[in-house]
Amino acid sequence: MNILLTNDDGIYAPGIEALHRALKDMGRVSVVAPDSQRSAVGHAITLSDPIKSVAIQRDGRPFGHATSGTPADCVKLAVCALLDHKPDLVISGINLGPNAGIAAIYSGTVSAATEGAILGLQSVAISIDTFTDPIWETPARVMQKLIPVLQKHPLPRDTVLNVNVPNLPYDQLKGFAATRMARSRYVEKFDKRADPRGNIYFWMDGDMEFTGERDHTDLDMLAKGYVSMTPIGFDLTRHELVDTVAGWKVSL
Amino acid sequence: MNILLTNDDGIYAPGIEALHRALKDMGRVSVVAPDSQRSAVGHAITLSDPIKSVAIQRDGRPFGHATSGTPADCVKLAVCALLDHKPDLVISGINLGPNAGIAAIYSGTVSAATEGAILGLQSVAISIDTFTDPIWETPARVMQKLIPVLQKHPLPRDTVLNVNVPNLPYDQLKGFAATRMARSRYVEKFDKRADPRGNIYFWMDGDMEFTGERDHTDLDMLAKGYVSMTPIGFDLTRHELVDTVAGWKVSL
Repeated sequence: MNILLTNDDGIYAPGIEALHRALKDMGRVSVVAPDSQRSAVGHAITLSDPIKSVAIQRDGRPFGHATSGTPADCVKLAVCALLDHKPDLVISGINLGPNAGIAAIYSGTVSAATEGAILGLQSVAISIDTFTDPIWETPARVMQKLIPVLQKHPLPRDTVLNVNVPNLPYDQLKGFAATRMARSRYVEKFDKRADPRGNIYFWMDGDMEFTGERDHTDLDMLAKGYVSMTPIGFDLTRHELVDTVAGWKVSL
Repeated sequence: MNILLTNDDGIYAPGIEALHRALKDMGRVSVVAPDSQRSAVGHAITLSDPIKSVAIQRDGRPFGHATSGTPADCVKLAVCALLDHKPDLVISGINLGPNAGIAAIYSGTVSAATEGAILGLQSVAISIDTFTDPIWETPARVMQKLIPVLQKHPLPRDTVLNVNVPNLPYDQLKGFAATRMARSRYVEKFDKRADPRGNIYFWMDGDMEFTGERDHTDLDMLAKGYVSMTPIGFDLTRHELVDTVAGWKVSL
């Protein structure tokens, strides 16, 4: 099995290294990832600049390609230019921090997996539900567990499996839950400051709040100690509203 | 009516200026937009850097705020920090180039409007179907036409109207069509080059191809001379597949 690993925390991040260590004996593992942190880049791609790519080592051994592009760029570049084989599975992560609820739409990690699905590949995003003291071994073992499941039950086309893992020792996990993305939003707080020359700038900060039903969502099950698995897609159309819009009968 | 304008081509782009000119007598128009081009940034937000904001003028008159953030940042910042009133309508555009089919997921223009919807505001993205010689007056008039329609038929929550306009004189438009986002992808071509020091870099390029049904999609109706109006959302869940994933019965 050919596995392509990428992430948005950068090729030197511990999450992708943990994933690489866990999966390297399960197939031929390639790594193409950003050369530094690209969190919250959403589904950005690089059209106005060239994308640089260099081979890098970790622990004195070839590890993968570091690129100047975004996570989505990395998947495109890997599949269309860098690899001499087509990946059977694209895995993006392990992201430091959850990508559940509305966070998924800001996430470079999720977007990289989405790009894999756009290219017609089986794709998974995996994130750990903490920003501090991550137990990387848990999501790494979760991924080892999920690979044979995905081989047995391939995802339908245009689908990404968005996996979020509680920051618990593996044997304290409650189980795996099929979930939906929680309807939620960030309540932004902007901290307004002036630089030494009097110019105004802002720091963005915020907390997530639920704006819809909580039960059985990714955020809910994650908080309860379950690995959440949400099948996500990239057709943004709200199909149920197309007829409503047609009913407006707008004329020139 | 309070209208917030933003875009991803930057505050000095002709598209946002055309929109401003067309709408300034229809309400109180505020502009908060990136200080330079931010195309294809997707739903990026700026967490690791401060966001600068400066008041700018056009033609010797106050025009709006230019920020160092992404289009999504601009909407958050405008609503949560810069404006002293809540917008009744967020309009993102006029984007130079179509945001139809899969292009919508890469688009900063669409993401800015999506951010408006996340914040609970009526939101529209508007784009012109050309990269050269745009007839800005056409989408500007389309937007003038749509504002009273949206006042009469407010969009349901969590919904953005993604509008694409053919690059034709207004009186040559065929009409308005309610559409869905075309299932499509870019077929990437990476042009591999070496810099004068021998370092490898790539330029990304590609053409869009349909990967699903063509009829009545945004790309289809746009090509036929209609203004396409696609209701889009940001719940990425493929709800019809949650039970399938549950059926995998993954155990620890």
